[in-house]
Amino acid sequence: MANEPGAPLRVALLGCGVVGSSVARMLVEQADDFAARAGAPLEIVGIAVRRPQRPRPDVPVDPALFTADAEDLVTRADIVIEVIGGIDPARGLILRALEHGASVVSANKALVAEDGPTLFEAATAHGVDLSYEAAVAGAIPILRPVQESLAGDHVRKVMGIVNGTTNFVLDAMDVSGSGFSETVEQAQALGYAEADPTADVEGFDAAAKAAILASLAFHTRVSAADVHREGITEVGAADIAAARENDCVVKLLAICERVTADGQDAVSVRVHPAMVPRSHPLASVREAFNAVFVEADAAGELMFYGRGAGGDPTASAVLGDVVAAARHRVAGGHGPRESAYADLPVVDMGQAVTRYHISLDVADRPGVLAQVAAVFAEQGVSIETVRQQPGPEGEDRARLIVVTHRATDAALSATVTALAALESVAAVASVMRVEGA
Amino acid sequence: MANEPGAPLRVALLGCGVVGSSVARMLVEQADDFAARAGAPLEIVGIAVRRPQRPRPDVPVDPALFTADAEDLVTRADIVIEVIGGIDPARGLILRALEHGASVVSANKALVAEDGPTLFEAATAHGVDLSYEAAVAGAIPILRPVQESLAGDHVRKVMGIVNGTTNFVLDAMDVSGSGFSETVEQAQALGYAEADPTADVEGFDAAAKAAILASLAFHTRVSAADVHREGITEVGAADIAAARENDCVVKLLAICERVTADGQDAVSVRVHPAMVPRSHPLASVREAFNAVFVEADAAGELMFYGRGAGGDPTASAVLGDVVAAARHRVAGGHGPRESAYADLPVVDMGQAVTRYHISLDVADRPGVLAQVAAVFAEQGVSIETVRQQPGPEGEDRARLIVVTHRATDAALSATVTALAALESVAAVASVMRVEGA
Repeated sequence: MANEPGAPLRVALLGCGVVGSSVARMLVEQADDFAARAGAPLEIVGIAVRRPQRPRPDVPVDPALFTADAEDLVTRADIVIEVIGGIDPARGLILRALEHGASVVSANKALVAEDGPTLFEAATAHGVDLSYEAAVAGAIPILRPVQESLAGDHVRKVMGIVNGTTNFVLDAMDVSGSGFSETVEQAQALGYAEADPTADVEGFDAAAKAAILASLAFHTRVSAADVHREGITEVGAADIAAARENDCVVKLLAICERVTADGQDAVSVRVHPAMVPRSHPLASVREAFNAVFVEADAAGELMFYGRGAGGDPTASAVLGDVVAAARHRVAGGHGPRESAYADLPVVDMGQAVTRYHISLDVADRPGVLAQVAAVFAEQGVSIETVRQQPGPEGEDRARLIVVTHRATDAALSATVTALAALESVAAVASVMRVEGA
Repeated sequence: MANEPGAPLRVALLGCGVVGSSVARMLVEQADDFAARAGAPLEIVGIAVRRPQRPRPDVPVDPALFTADAEDLVTRADIVIEVIGGIDPARGLILRALEHGASVVSANKALVAEDGPTLFEAATAHGVDLSYEAAVAGAIPILRPVQESLAGDHVRKVMGIVNGTTNFVLDAMDVSGSGFSETVEQAQALGYAEADPTADVEGFDAAAKAAILASLAFHTRVSAADVHREGITEVGAADIAAARENDCVVKLLAICERVTADGQDAVSVRVHPAMVPRSHPLASVREAFNAVFVEADAAGELMFYGRGAGGDPTASAVLGDVVAAARHRVAGGHGPRESAYADLPVVDMGQAVTRYHISLDVADRPGVLAQVAAVFAEQGVSIETVRQQPGPEGEDRARLIVVTHRATDAALSATVTALAALESVAAVASVMRVEGA
């Protein structure tokens, strides 16, 4: 798919929202740099939008370039940039572009996590690039480092804060002590959460990113449907307070981890809130920032930090991929293909190995601790620390705070169920997994 | 330079010290993964060492593979890994390997910073790869992100802790309050500093890395000789204490920055100790860890963190490059070539724009502050804050602590000289640049 040396490369843009308009502006304003870096000028040949007539004064291109006919546009380009998002019509347009020999750069985490292999196979069949650095953690270079820089290493774990909205909400709850609902409203007012925050707060967005990270880190196909997903809607002020007492913060983590299940290598891929010690690098990721922590056998611990969303940061990642695709068209070669040779099984959440931090309100009388400890023992869960605090004045209650050793999530979960059924346990005040400790 | 599909690629290793033996071990132990990821088996065909007869039980290869004849070995390989270090004979061997059509992966910061363009031109002329991710910040993927992921962005500044020895020493001085010499001795005893620590503590190692980072970030040839270099040998307990009072830590920074000089775009590339606010992400980089902070127009602030040295971490970076080179030989194409089109001038240190933190011991009498302030005004340096503290009991002294606004380093330096000459200034207790604030 090599182009004439020096001939301009035709770039089509699908979508012109916040990210698309940043992309278009940068392509125009930094045209000389792009030409020098890519080896050929990058020329916008069209921008597909729903309403081509709408004035867009912030996008410095000839208004005649706007078109509603995306189907046609993708057949007239060397490089197609897809920033529409969602499954359809993005999937059909990307496949059509690949079939017509265009390289595609996408920021579409949902699509790659749902149906990546179909797209990868089409790119390989047509000898073109399909890249999607912007789909995970916005401006932070994370897919290229995992896929290329760590290609000679053995990744053990990837653990990231990959959703800015939920990090903003959890951070604000930690700072203010407020509850979930009012903090989400505040985030919406500040533009950090959408009017319908479901995709973020229920963890769908993070789960798609976890699937993509796990696929690359473990050379295994992992789709969004394989990811165990818990959002932050159940995280209450009591959990945040429990974390603070434990010198931790609560973060929504995307976790991709090698595990052993039934004696075989396997992977656990999950999204859930977890307590993280304040001394851990991920704990200091504030507001809407993102960070990804990687543990590899040889490299040790690595962390990548930056802005996970926004027009310009996402455009930075998109355009890095565009330059790479352009270089390949000018000079030959292609980016890394899908690598799924390891084909590891993805375990159920019950087989994941985690630790729990459990706060119980119990009757304040002799023998209760023994009863509680017996439940842990019955489930084969060993206790790391147990701390007893006085309950509210005038009530016959005490607060028991238990931090477990590592055990299967199934055993930990069964333990909580059994604890809740104890007559001496008045309430399970908070249950949270612990990571990074 | 494409090889037969599936045919093994011949890998030659030059050097078998700490890094080389990690590389050899990983190539052998993870041979199946390398074959799957590279698209062909990677077969070690020789390891050049000074004493081939010496037993090396930690390197699981046929002892017959060790050879003293590096000149011959590089002509028999598809990929040559150079982990000898230093300028000669590494330079001659790399050039010879490239001329014989081998791709080269090097961890040699000194050579790339001194004579990179000669090597890059040879690689381009022979259509092969030359890559050196391991040369900067060990295991941290930083060159590939700057060169590829940020290829569509406009990097403004790169600021890194890229030398583990000096970070260990400065961190230990901060924690213990000890002086420079005794801390270096302690670092030597723990294996964090070499017997002759000159290359680290005088900033030569960091300067080479700064040159490499600046070249990639600014698309401009920058060699080690272009880098303004100050080490940490002059950093005393007084500086560390002054930093602590200012809620800062002292770090040895490699700084690559776009500047305007005489109305033209230019770059400043420098290595020097600086006060960094404790709230800055670089301040929390402890012990011998490395981190690189990048500011780009679109991406905003990014940080990359991890282990900057050691056999396995460096081998991780080397082997990422090896897999990339192998993929290119199997599937065609090549890695990014040298990009020096911007060709920006590198300014003298005097033209760099910095801020100073100055602690003065002055006579405790009326009028001294006015005299001091007049010196700043004469040099055109504006003061951000000035703080006066009582001096030692029984002496007629006070301590004046001045933090300046940004000014050229020449003006700031001239100000310090003029202050030292004032009759009312008994001593300049500490002078340190401030970064990240």
